[in-house]
Amino acid sequence: MNKSFIQQLLKNYTPGFSLEQAFYTNTDVFETEWQHIFRKHWLYAGNLAQIQKPGDYFLYRLQNDSVMVIRGKDHEVYAHYNTCRHRGSAICLTDSGHAAKLICPYHQWVYDKDGTLLNARMMPDDFCKEEYKLHSANVRVLEGLIFICLAEVAPGFSSTQNSLSPYLEPYRIGEAKLACIKNYTLRANWKLVAENFRECYHCGGAHPEYCSAVIGANLREDINELTLAKQKTWREKGLETTLVEVTEGTTTYAIRYPLRPGVESYSVDGTRVSIPMGSHKDRDAGVVGLVNYPNFWMDAVSDYIWTMRVTPVNPFTTDVQFCWLVDGKAVEGKDYTIDHLTEFWEITGDQDGKLCEHNFEGILSSAYTPGPYAPVEDQVVNFVDWCVKQLKEGIHQAELV
Amino acid sequence: MNKSFIQQLLKNYTPGFSLEQAFYTNTDVFETEWQHIFRKHWLYAGNLAQIQKPGDYFLYRLQNDSVMVIRGKDHEVYAHYNTCRHRGSAICLTDSGHAAKLICPYHQWVYDKDGTLLNARMMPDDFCKEEYKLHSANVRVLEGLIFICLAEVAPGFSSTQNSLSPYLEPYRIGEAKLACIKNYTLRANWKLVAENFRECYHCGGAHPEYCSAVIGANLREDINELTLAKQKTWREKGLETTLVEVTEGTTTYAIRYPLRPGVESYSVDGTRVSIPMGSHKDRDAGVVGLVNYPNFWMDAVSDYIWTMRVTPVNPFTTDVQFCWLVDGKAVEGKDYTIDHLTEFWEITGDQDGKLCEHNFEGILSSAYTPGPYAPVEDQVVNFVDWCVKQLKEGIHQAELV
Amino acid sequence: MNKSFIQQLLKNYTPGFSLEQAFYTNTDVFETEWQHIFRKHWLYAGNLAQIQKPGDYFLYRLQNDSVMVIRGKDHEVYAHYNTCRHRGSAICLTDSGHAAKLICPYHQWVYDKDGTLLNARMMPDDFCKEEYKLHSANVRVLEGLIFICLAEVAPGFSSTQNSLSPYLEPYRIGEAKLACIKNYTLRANWKLVAENFRECYHCGGAHPEYCSAVIGANLREDINELTLAKQKTWREKGLETTLVEVTEGTTTYAIRYPLRPGVESYSVDGTRVSIPMGSHKDRDAGVVGLVNYPNFWMDAVSDYIWTMRVTPVNPFTTDVQFCWLVDGKAVEGKDYTIDHLTEFWEITGDQDGKLCEHNFEGILSSAYTPGPYAPVEDQVVNFVDWCVKQLKEGIHQAELV
Repeated sequence: MNKSFIQQLLKNYTPGFSLEQAFYTNTDVFETEWQHIFRKHWLYAGNLAQIQKPGDYFLYRLQNDSVMVIRGKDHEVYAHYNTCRHRGSAICLTDSGHAAKLICPYHQWVYDKDGTLLNARMMPDDFCKEEYKLHSANVRVLEGLIFICLAEVAPGFSSTQNSLSPYLEPYRIGEAKLACIKNYTLRANWKLVAENFRECYHCGGAHPEYCSAVIGANLREDINELTLAKQKTWREKGLETTLVEVTEGTTTYAIRYPLRPGVESYSVDGTRVSIPMGSHKDRDAGVVGLVNYPNFWMDAVSDYIWTMRVTPVNPFTTDVQFCWLVDGKAVEGKDYTIDHLTEFWEITGDQDGKLCEHNFEGILSSAYTPGPYAPVEDQVVNFVDWCVKQLKEGIHQAELV
Repeated sequence: MNKSFIQQLLKNYTPGFSLEQAFYTNTDVFETEWQHIFRKHWLYAGNLAQIQKPGDYFLYRLQNDSVMVIRGKDHEVYAHYNTCRHRGSAICLTDSGHAAKLICPYHQWVYDKDGTLLNARMMPDDFCKEEYKLHSANVRVLEGLIFICLAEVAPGFSSTQNSLSPYLEPYRIGEAKLACIKNYTLRANWKLVAENFRECYHCGGAHPEYCSAVIGANLREDINELTLAKQKTWREKGLETTLVEVTEGTTTYAIRYPLRPGVESYSVDGTRVSIPMGSHKDRDAGVVGLVNYPNFWMDAVSDYIWTMRVTPVNPFTTDVQFCWLVDGKAVEGKDYTIDHLTEFWEITGDQDGKLCEHNFEGILSSAYTPGPYAPVEDQVVNFVDWCVKQLKEGIHQAELV
Repeated sequence: MNKSFIQQLLKNYTPGFSLEQAFYTNTDVFETEWQHIFRKHWLYAGNLAQIQKPGDYFLYRLQNDSVMVIRGKDHEVYAHYNTCRHRGSAICLTDSGHAAKLICPYHQWVYDKDGTLLNARMMPDDFCKEEYKLHSANVRVLEGLIFICLAEVAPGFSSTQNSLSPYLEPYRIGEAKLACIKNYTLRANWKLVAENFRECYHCGGAHPEYCSAVIGANLREDINELTLAKQKTWREKGLETTLVEVTEGTTTYAIRYPLRPGVESYSVDGTRVSIPMGSHKDRDAGVVGLVNYPNFWMDAVSDYIWTMRVTPVNPFTTDVQFCWLVDGKAVEGKDYTIDHLTEFWEITGDQDGKLCEHNFEGILSSAYTPGPYAPVEDQVVNFVDWCVKQLKEGIHQAELV
């Protein structure tokens, strides 16, 4: 780890300009980010609709780790590292599933869903099972969204909780239905994916479908008056409208903005996609846009939720998971179809994926130099500033130890 | 090469506990193992049934090397590095074949099977052919098994020779028939493959076919009385029964143990697989289990031999070669079929391969910590101890130079 | 970068012997070559037949760079790095194409073909477009061949220009027709590809088709008298015959040599392939063989040109591009067919590619040691000497800075 190189990079950073190449390509920078961003902050892992019954689990793969997120017998959620305390074997072998007990496939050590070692056959009499519980990560469930933290001591979660709860509550994610999950691997640094989702400077040229659903996304329409009128209506219905911005010490962004008049949902043809979710009564909830640094993006309309989980693999590869949720009572084929539900974000996400990959390809050039962000890219600057700050503080704190 | 890091790892090793993660994943550890284990010890390369006639050869690929193991005109065996003394081109281009002479495909330099340079066309008059023999490795043939050693000065072979000869002799491998060779690539550190094949703690849960052929493999049946009775019978027939264990300065393990009564061979249905091999007269030879650290495993029954050659590729990849031999007079289709012959170890080997890969996957976790071996895994401890010892001694000797 | 290791390697180099293994496999050596050979010298990129009209472009990928070689409105040629000055995105996304203007697909910044930034929407008033032209490389067009140089200050080009022009002029490449381009990826160090194309010691054994077209290629036929007679004829027709050798400070080799009597072209059956190119009047121009270190090879006969562009990817991977040009007036199907045109170099190139890959495979051996070149491999020695010299001088100059 070349620390002085990274410190020089961080010192050279000019706010308002894109990052130097090494931030996107250097392995030491990547490992520093992993240590001071991804292993310290709360990460979105998934949601309760993925694990409805006790014993239901899914795996979240993070670098060389695979974390088993499992529903316990009292419906609480646990996150265990997928490695047996005997000789280290992986225990759960499929990306999701159901397990009454966690049994290692190698030598049949048996763990309870809460991580307790229940049985280790043929071990000597003085073997102490209590010393061999599964290694676990921190877990918080926020209105049905599951966040985990790999740090020994997790940072506070109340700011994120307070900011996102009012937006999430009406969706009743705890009773929602998992409609579809899709995984993508992008050849691009993870920050480029994050940056892409923090500005609409590119929307007019790249996203015709998105711009026909979202008024103002092309940055050419004046939506001030419409937004103010809509906010009044939303507040009267009890829907949250407070803009939350990422500021000193926080990681959360939240906004509600209007769909184009006449458009009922995030769909290519503008028509409704499913029945209203949770406590929503009509189609007029606009778009709820939520972000939690470093890995969570969510856009929700009255009838469905779309989440995006961003997971760095290495400096030049990023895994992205899309998840679509609908109301728990919605019936596939009758109330919604997978094709109509997923079409909008499949198209838009594919456009974004290609933009990110081409962005990364050009940044690899020996001639690349940081360029100036446009004023409408201010949220990208916010994100990049945040990343640089985490690295500076992380390195500084590590030096004090 | 971070030597102090490796020395600290070796110092931290606690016998009875699985190795720390870096032993399985670190490139410097791997290179140290390559230098002090694989480039120093005798390695099983193959057997005489693979190269019956003068000029028959096969390649053994070890890291970036490919070693040509070739039968000379007097039926002796040679091992040459597959690199021409002119500009380095590979000479033999297929995994096995026949070559009256070894002719480099690039500029047609011609070598004899013993490595002598016979012809180098258009070289100047003062060119001295004697200085350009092929580079060779050490070779020993042990009852038809071919071992090579890449060290300049090979260690003694007599202990291995003396331990294995009595077990091997009845099989007459020199006159045996090569029935089948299969190659597998596992995503697992080579030591995990070795460890897997040194314990049966996992057999009951993972190997139903193996456990129905081998009494006691499930560790739940008492086979003491049966074994004693069988040993008496075997000794009366002149079959070796002395248990050989790996001890200070040796690398060899050998044992004979009984099949389940009524089972005639290592086969899924328990029936005979071929005609008795070599000097065997009946189906009652039990199982001969042989190991030679670091890369040789063999299980033989009265009618066939199965060998396993383990070759590390990098810290996380291991090549495994299975080879099945039958009696030289056995006729395919009449006396045996490939399917019936290979089914047992294909199934069992596939189960083991998956266990090794899952074991490795879990060890990669940032949360992995060495765990305690069960008492019945004592041979795994023997193997791991042996590896650690080779590294400690190798590094120590290298420092004295 | 382990400079002392490289300097020791360079010091150990023995002219007349093949290079030590590390020259072909070591990443630091490769990066030093990239810096002191490929980023300093003129590189063949392509030819005018690939970009006939203003706005036509092709990409040349060099390591992480992609260089857009584009025809400007006055038919001049530009070479721009394919990275937008805003946030670095790649601009041209296909290997070749046509673009009236260069528009970044991410946020629609618009550049002229000469690299000028024409439009950057929504940037602040004080944004200075003149500071954000595309980054460019040096370009020279030599009788229709396009060379680029990635150095800030390019070395002189007049020696190459003067040596090659008389050989190239009769072909009228500026008006030639691009018949075919094929790309190959070889698993071999780039120098092995270059070495292979600097000797015919291997031709007799490896290239039966080539040897039946080119008299003397087998090194067994005396062609002295024939060559002298042919040179007289060629000179009378105004065709260049002066042998150009790579000497101190130059990079260019040029020669004209005879086809086998009765053979009309570089073709497997010896028959003509197309109409005579440019100012050629008959089939009797022999073979023009041109080389420019480090990446350009060309063989031309009276009716077609074949070029080879060699591009290192990493120590063990090399991209090779073959390009076939015919006279601008030749009509496919009538005057030539792609199959007949390309067959000769497809077969010969495939043979050479395999030789290079096998050469590399053998050099990887731990037993590889530099071997003696044959006297007929003197041009290989010339190339290897040249490479070593560039590294020595480059490192020396870098130290003075």
